[in-house]
Amino acid sequence: MRDTTTRLTTEQQTLVRQVAARLKGEFSGTFSPETVERFVGESRQVLEERAQVTTWLPILIERFARDRLRALARVEGRSDETRPAVLFLCVHNAGRSQMAAGWLRHLAGDAVEVYSGGSEPASEVNRSAVEAMAEVGIDIRTEFPKPWAEEIVRAADVVVTMGCGDACPVYPGKRYEDWELADPAQQPIEVVRGIRDEIRQRVQVLMASLGLSPEG
Amino acid sequence: MRDTTTRLTTEQQTLVRQVAARLKGEFSGTFSPETVERFVGESRQVLEERAQVTTWLPILIERFARDRLRALARVEGRSDETRPAVLFLCVHNAGRSQMAAGWLRHLAGDAVEVYSGGSEPASEVNRSAVEAMAEVGIDIRTEFPKPWAEEIVRAADVVVTMGCGDACPVYPGKRYEDWELADPAQQPIEVVRGIRDEIRQRVQVLMASLGLSPEG
Repeated sequence: MRDTTTRLTTEQQTLVRQVAARLKGEFSGTFSPETVERFVGESRQVLEERAQVTTWLPILIERFARDRLRALARVEGRSDETRPAVLFLCVHNAGRSQMAAGWLRHLAGDAVEVYSGGSEPASEVNRSAVEAMAEVGIDIRTEFPKPWAEEIVRAADVVVTMGCGDACPVYPGKRYEDWELADPAQQPIEVVRGIRDEIRQRVQVLMASLGLSPEG
Repeated sequence: MRDTTTRLTTEQQTLVRQVAARLKGEFSGTFSPETVERFVGESRQVLEERAQVTTWLPILIERFARDRLRALARVEGRSDETRPAVLFLCVHNAGRSQMAAGWLRHLAGDAVEVYSGGSEPASEVNRSAVEAMAEVGIDIRTEFPKPWAEEIVRAADVVVTMGCGDACPVYPGKRYEDWELADPAQQPIEVVRGIRDEIRQRVQVLMASLGLSPEG
């Protein structure tokens, strides 16, 4: 905790300590307090150094650290989770990977665990992507760009890469898919809609391959 | 469905039909398809006529209709829900009642069912309220002002009113609390913070009276 150089207010530093306490409770019996503390600290560091707006940092640190701890529990065989885990990766975790994650959550509901990340995460989700997803009834307003985390890659049953090329992590023995899709960054909404619809089709094929049927 | 006078796009009307289909599935065995259809239609009508931005309407219609159907199931004894239900009401459902709902969800977690509403709902949640809640680690960005709904009032174990006076619904035999709090509308953030902290204290007293202990 580099409190001397932090951009967090005193109140936010208190919140991050509360986040750590809450996660220690949630993961007690699975991870030691030290492990939880370390993941909160690391999650804070990578999110803090990239954030333009610091307002949401304590909330986002909690979500990122929780995701990472859940993934770590899977990797270490400390989880009773049996649902498939899917990770979507692109460069900025601001457009393609967020839309793919939104579709999979929407179409498969609780039947799958969905993660996303980027090799060079942006400071916020692409507004046109948020708008285009809203048009199909999916709310990704509270999502946030974040780097890929090793334990999440390792926990994933399928890693879908979208345009991160060599910057995307590759682990042997894991199922990878590479989806060739245009980058929605700086594109007009009409183009983003096309990418959104293409992602939907690919997500549906992926779901079928995982034995997942659409909800509702 | 007044499709001739609607402000929804053709695509949004399709989404609302999908919402109805999804809720019919969720509530099958509890409510007839006609009942679900009626609640979706009514929820659509009241939200549509007040919305300034129509982008989120299908998503908000789904959430409001689902809340109302869950409440109706309680009222009619068709629910196996045993958690206490609390409803917060103010004039605009944009400041006080949203902050109270945010606190209760945050502090009590899944141990309680939380509703909110207003007698004259605003078009969006007060930005200073969103900001002030973010400062304490609570994200209410996706909340939305909505009118109070009769079945939710009837389902609530406690109704907390905050400044709606005679415009708030009163049903005999129900536990009411009236909280005197300043209205955060048009107030500077410093004032909103004070209201936020006062609401926290009151929510904690309420929780104690319901036998709920704070999470984490």
